[in-house]
Amino acid sequence: MPPGPPRSFPDLLYLLRDLPPPAEASAAAARARQAELTKPQGSLGRLEEIAEFLARWQGREMPALEHPLVLIFAGNHGVVAQGVSAYPPSVTQAMVDNFASGGAAINQICKAFALDLKVVPLDLATATEDFTRAPAMSEAEATAHFARGMAAVPANADLVAIGEMGIGNTTSAAAIYAALYGGLPAYWAGRGTGVDDAGLARKIAAIDAALAAHGAHLSQPLEVLRRLGGREIAAMAGAIVAARRAGIPILLDGYVACAAAAVLHAQDPELIAHCLAGHQSADGAHANVLARLGKRPLLDLGMRLGEASGAAMAAGLVKAALACHTGMATFAEAQVAGKSGS
Amino acid sequence: MPPGPPRSFPDLLYLLRDLPPPAEASAAAARARQAELTKPQGSLGRLEEIAEFLARWQGREMPALEHPLVLIFAGNHGVVAQGVSAYPPSVTQAMVDNFASGGAAINQICKAFALDLKVVPLDLATATEDFTRAPAMSEAEATAHFARGMAAVPANADLVAIGEMGIGNTTSAAAIYAALYGGLPAYWAGRGTGVDDAGLARKIAAIDAALAAHGAHLSQPLEVLRRLGGREIAAMAGAIVAARRAGIPILLDGYVACAAAAVLHAQDPELIAHCLAGHQSADGAHANVLARLGKRPLLDLGMRLGEASGAAMAAGLVKAALACHTGMATFAEAQVAGKSGS
Repeated sequence: MPPGPPRSFPDLLYLLRDLPPPAEASAAAARARQAELTKPQGSLGRLEEIAEFLARWQGREMPALEHPLVLIFAGNHGVVAQGVSAYPPSVTQAMVDNFASGGAAINQICKAFALDLKVVPLDLATATEDFTRAPAMSEAEATAHFARGMAAVPANADLVAIGEMGIGNTTSAAAIYAALYGGLPAYWAGRGTGVDDAGLARKIAAIDAALAAHGAHLSQPLEVLRRLGGREIAAMAGAIVAARRAGIPILLDGYVACAAAAVLHAQDPELIAHCLAGHQSADGAHANVLARLGKRPLLDLGMRLGEASGAAMAAGLVKAALACHTGMATFAEAQVAGKSGS
Repeated sequence: MPPGPPRSFPDLLYLLRDLPPPAEASAAAARARQAELTKPQGSLGRLEEIAEFLARWQGREMPALEHPLVLIFAGNHGVVAQGVSAYPPSVTQAMVDNFASGGAAINQICKAFALDLKVVPLDLATATEDFTRAPAMSEAEATAHFARGMAAVPANADLVAIGEMGIGNTTSAAAIYAALYGGLPAYWAGRGTGVDDAGLARKIAAIDAALAAHGAHLSQPLEVLRRLGGREIAAMAGAIVAARRAGIPILLDGYVACAAAAVLHAQDPELIAHCLAGHQSADGAHANVLARLGKRPLLDLGMRLGEASGAAMAAGLVKAALACHTGMATFAEAQVAGKSGS
């Protein structure tokens, strides 16, 4: 790897190669342990899969969740000028302040499940370019925010639930999906924070305009990211890659967080192999996105808030799944009779 | 209400009448509060519904979850003589011991979400009658276990996640569903703890035999309960009714717990209006049961363990949902700008 932070897309592409392999031996050991615990085999369903997943990506039969982190990146979007959101862009900073003072949904969920919370605002005083007219970011800017995302993942984290805040960013995510997957903007775009019919029409028109403006340059995933993305989406992609390289499992939040994962997946599906889908968002065509990413969501609660709220809810489940894996007695320890004939 | 515990089905039927109404004013106040919290309206999806549900059944705009309880009833089943389970009946007591020593899945989930745990073994040294040949319980015995279930709900509980342990009891539950809803035993019966094909065939044959033996007496829900049920199923029904009368919301566990709810629902759907479905079990035709009960499960994780494990997982979500409701700032408090034009 070249020394220092990446400065260009060739530097980034270097970081996306030579990924550490999954620890299949640890996963197999965890699976074998699950078969010995005092329950019918397979009866904990996806809780057993979660334990095996954590073992695979933390590289140990008995994974730990001592430092689960909710990591939120915040950015502002030039495309808001097109009237695509129900809220003014000042709300991005106001919600970051709300995170700091503990008043947001994510603060309560973190408290409920004892998750750490780290919020990284990305130059909120300015917005990216309006991508209906120009690339949202230069290559240097996109790379820099990708690198900030990488640097934001603490070495001691053992699980990262990843999410975002950014007025206008569901328009950016929908544009990314339309660019990566084809299909009509009207199919991918949802109501985000709750735009009315006129707002939704403006959102769709903005995506149409963006695809027309950038269409010839959208065959490379990193170009999709810089032209249609935003700072927080680039940073989430960076954080996912850093976690992949450091052996830290990821919980993806919803519609916008998955746009970062989708860019990476388009580059190489292995880049998001260490990611679980926290939930299925009620926004846009998120179910279709998850299917394309090959991820089955842990939760489907009609949430569409962002700010990592769905991923953090899922982190509660993941903690309980691991508690079963590490804390349950085996049949031998508990002197419980096994299955007849076994 | 007559004094003392119920001694007969007429006594029980008395307890099932004159239910306290839901506190719609509290629910409306909770709904109004949700609209003021710092998030787009409706963006927390079912978390908002949960807050409203708790308000409705606890009778206050700001519900509390200071004493959430996981309540497990255990019973043994005479129908095990028909070879319907993969495990010997001694496992019921062994698992109760495992609950006491903290080695079961439910212990770990309770610890993860700070839930109290209470286990009520119901005369485990003996089993009910084999219901392929005789009613599982006399009216007096069914009533007594219903009453024990009622008495097991502590007055200070503010949420009860209800579940069971009982080798053979998925056969009992499947028989109850077939009796209440019609349809083939083979449709309702799942593999429970994991019977093989021969075991499943014996299970289906046992239900067929039970329906043939009791068919003429299965038009009354309480008769279905005593003839095809078990002690823990009667006790769960009692606990649900006691909670309904005391203003305590219930989280239902899976395939077997819902058989208790189904008996009550067949008597009067209002008896389970204070119940949320914690999860959809992977056993039998539980999805169909939930649809008939009018309940949408909070979780669908392929679990089929019983011992309230799915309900307890859901209790973690409910705690986080309430934390959002009571802990989030309003738009006014946080000085966040509201939706444009609103």
